[in-house]
Amino acid sequence: MDQQKKNEIFENAKAWVLEAGERIKTNIDSPRSIETKSNPNDLVTEMDQETEQFFAGKINDTYPDHYLLGEEGFGDEIEDLGGTVWIVDPIDGTMNFVHQKRNFAISVGVYYEGVGEIGLIYNVMDGTLYTAKRGEGAYKNEEKLPHLDEERPLNQSILALNTSWLIPENPHVDHKGMEDLVKKIRSTRSYGSAALEFAFVAEGLLDGYLTMTLMPWDYAAGSIIVREVGGIVTRADREELDLLNKTTVLASRSNIHEEISKDYVRLKK
Amino acid sequence: MDQQKKNEIFENAKAWVLEAGERIKTNIDSPRSIETKSNPNDLVTEMDQETEQFFAGKINDTYPDHYLLGEEGFGDEIEDLGGTVWIVDPIDGTMNFVHQKRNFAISVGVYYEGVGEIGLIYNVMDGTLYTAKRGEGAYKNEEKLPHLDEERPLNQSILALNTSWLIPENPHVDHKGMEDLVKKIRSTRSYGSAALEFAFVAEGLLDGYLTMTLMPWDYAAGSIIVREVGGIVTRADREELDLLNKTTVLASRSNIHEEISKDYVRLKK
Repeated sequence: MDQQKKNEIFENAKAWVLEAGERIKTNIDSPRSIETKSNPNDLVTEMDQETEQFFAGKINDTYPDHYLLGEEGFGDEIEDLGGTVWIVDPIDGTMNFVHQKRNFAISVGVYYEGVGEIGLIYNVMDGTLYTAKRGEGAYKNEEKLPHLDEERPLNQSILALNTSWLIPENPHVDHKGMEDLVKKIRSTRSYGSAALEFAFVAEGLLDGYLTMTLMPWDYAAGSIIVREVGGIVTRADREELDLLNKTTVLASRSNIHEEISKDYVRLKK
Repeated sequence: MDQQKKNEIFENAKAWVLEAGERIKTNIDSPRSIETKSNPNDLVTEMDQETEQFFAGKINDTYPDHYLLGEEGFGDEIEDLGGTVWIVDPIDGTMNFVHQKRNFAISVGVYYEGVGEIGLIYNVMDGTLYTAKRGEGAYKNEEKLPHLDEERPLNQSILALNTSWLIPENPHVDHKGMEDLVKKIRSTRSYGSAALEFAFVAEGLLDGYLTMTLMPWDYAAGSIIVREVGGIVTRADREELDLLNKTTVLASRSNIHEEISKDYVRLKK
């Protein structure tokens, strides 16, 4: 992607993310209708939909040749990542949005010919914007994030890991391996927003994030930001991420990535 | 406790908590030595110790007839809860303090003849102060917290629950019951600070918090604050809390408390 074009897209993306965030903040206390999607705990609100429509409008007006892959389906039917594709989660962490009115994020990744060029994660209610341009480092607001530690061992690490993966019946990963991982590490956290969990890995608050069922919009921005501080982001089996389908994800500091995957992750399929 | 005395103690406690918070904030980026206590993941820093000494000094100077029960041992040897006892955790969530430089709290509970009269939890880095006086409601900064929901069922609830309790070898609770609980509820969260998890229950961000190994200073303030918004706080088996020893704790909205305890918690001893 041409540098001037990349800078221009970044500035537009940033302005739109902040504007969308303002709209959400203004309406945070409005009564809302909550629907469920794939299961009773997969929530969606009109604010998710309105926010995605806002991005769809902006992108379509400004860059009619760009594509949009969005969680709520107001984008394009995409079968490959040719050209410039915006991958947008209008509200990542909808359950937090509904129950907590905070701890959710707007996530925007911009890909060019399949390569992640620009990532933005906006922690709306606390006003923190995480950004990255490929090859230019990652930022928390105006502050450049340092390169991640590459020394601290796994037994001193904190991982974002949901209790779901410790349930024997979960269809994705052998729970015994997850038990061994919990016993090995220092502690686990769970914040309820994949985008924020990537941001916290990039910031060094978490040493890694392991999960089994992410959609492209959950990690499109986060994977770019984590890589810019030296972290590794792959499927949980260390294969490359598939940006068009549901996938497992392991994002972590570089020195613990292979150990987590090899010694603790046994995928069921 | 006399009302005027209670108000005076509250104002002093609040001023000291804010002052201690300022000292921590000022030094948050200083290099620090980290030691371990009961196990390699039970961390303590000189800042925990200095902060407790700060409270010990203030309490001793102002109320020489009061007692202090503190995590770091600068208080009194206490065998009962007669008189006025301050129960202080100078930094609740020391692991977060060390790894994240945020998401930790100062927790102060003041008990009179065994009854919790005053609770304060200060989320130091984001500047949020949760307070309660018994019988007078709970506050987040200057805003009075509403009474908790008493209708929403368990299957729409979010609980703070650590992955530890899903490990078969944990010595405290049958992990099968915990698996069933995770399958029943909407989702789990884990923030790494007991005091903040109580505060989030009081605020309605979490519907409950279940854990197996709390010390008095971890819940002395939180239990007062949660009760002031109509929540129930007991041991996990619904017995009264023992404020002098390590204990299990279940804090939740009133309508799901018995169901969690009765149907899902099977203590091992």
